[in-house]
Amino acid sequence: VVEELRPRVVSFHFGLPAADLLSRVQAVGAKILASATTLEEALWLEDRGCDVIIAQGLEAGGHRGMFLSSDLSRQIGTFALVRQVVDAVRVPVVAAGGIGDGRGVAAALALGAAGVQIGTAYLLCPESTVSPVHRRELEAATADSTAVTNVQTGRPARGILNRLMREQGPMADDVPEFPFAASVLVSLRQAAESDSRSDFSPLWCGQYPPRRRGMPAAELTRQLAAEALEVMREMAL
Amino acid sequence: VVEELRPRVVSFHFGLPAADLLSRVQAVGAKILASATTLEEALWLEDRGCDVIIAQGLEAGGHRGMFLSSDLSRQIGTFALVRQVVDAVRVPVVAAGGIGDGRGVAAALALGAAGVQIGTAYLLCPESTVSPVHRRELEAATADSTAVTNVQTGRPARGILNRLMREQGPMADDVPEFPFAASVLVSLRQAAESDSRSDFSPLWCGQYPPRRRGMPAAELTRQLAAEALEVMREMAL
Repeated sequence: VVEELRPRVVSFHFGLPAADLLSRVQAVGAKILASATTLEEALWLEDRGCDVIIAQGLEAGGHRGMFLSSDLSRQIGTFALVRQVVDAVRVPVVAAGGIGDGRGVAAALALGAAGVQIGTAYLLCPESTVSPVHRRELEAATADSTAVTNVQTGRPARGILNRLMREQGPMADDVPEFPFAASVLVSLRQAAESDSRSDFSPLWCGQYPPRRRGMPAAELTRQLAAEALEVMREMAL
Repeated sequence: VVEELRPRVVSFHFGLPAADLLSRVQAVGAKILASATTLEEALWLEDRGCDVIIAQGLEAGGHRGMFLSSDLSRQIGTFALVRQVVDAVRVPVVAAGGIGDGRGVAAALALGAAGVQIGTAYLLCPESTVSPVHRRELEAATADSTAVTNVQTGRPARGILNRLMREQGPMADDVPEFPFAASVLVSLRQAAESDSRSDFSPLWCGQYPPRRRGMPAAELTRQLAAEALEVMREMAL
């Protein structure tokens, strides 16, 4: 697919593909991005030729990109991770996790990031394809609503606490391997969702739940940038 | 003690004392500071008359100030916590956790904090009373070296991983209540330390280990402030 479409950027999660496959991606001229959740992973990615490293802090929603270690207790918050990855690597660093407004963007740049990756803030945009139960839970979520769980898919990911996470986890030792835990849940999930219940659905969400509802993604992006510039101007006064 | 010394500021960890005791502290004119590790705790502290709230992110070294919940899986990173506490309360917010240089200070201010609380960065100052084994581990630590453990004291606290944390935790269900877990360890710890081993010592450290060694605390403070101002000036360009 990459050789056919020749994208300018290819971003990986869960580490990198094997060296020969990665070479083929690089051969079409694509810049390689990948997520690091620890300092060790950032250095590993830089060694293997990543052009940009995404420092994914523990606040981030969805799957943790962790690939050198499965030890959740050593995962690092965005603030500490971004700062130290920036200092440790020569390539540009993109900050991810818990960034949801212009102040967050400005703070990430202050830490030395070259850019930000924002996911959760866009989940209530009209372009988003989240399910109705996911949308409802996102609207009600606060900073304290989420946890990292492996019971939804088999791999650690941050989402809003629901019945499945409370009763089986949020982390459990005996889950089916990724992504088969999700397959096992399909019928339970569908039955619950048809009854408007979110008990078994993955409700991915970072620790900064979306605040702005119904705003098109492009407008949200412009608003975040304008806010960040305003904060940066004020800080110099 | 407070009524005798009449300090201008009293800072609490693990919540607040009973209302009658808190009133006596307020009666001597002291401003009340206290740590919040969740949005819920921040709102609770504001309701009870705290003058300043310290938003203690998950990156922070030492004991977690958590008091409304013991659920570590819902603790929040500094980046996401500071931002949302600032928005939720009317009192000034001090950012804590993973802040170790001027860029971190500038980023905390960008998030809307009124100030920062920095601990780990000062642990290698000459004024610091850390033990020789603690000092040695701090000098070798990276962002990935720490975890939150309850096996050192009975309460969750972040420190550098050692034998005790690896073999018994880092989190365990059957630890003696705070602070008695530490009492149980005294002789093991003393024996190990007399042999220059850190196997059983609490090695408190945040996710941004100290980088500057041997610099007096006052000089470090001035350097952090100067760096932060420089970053803030650059950001406006």
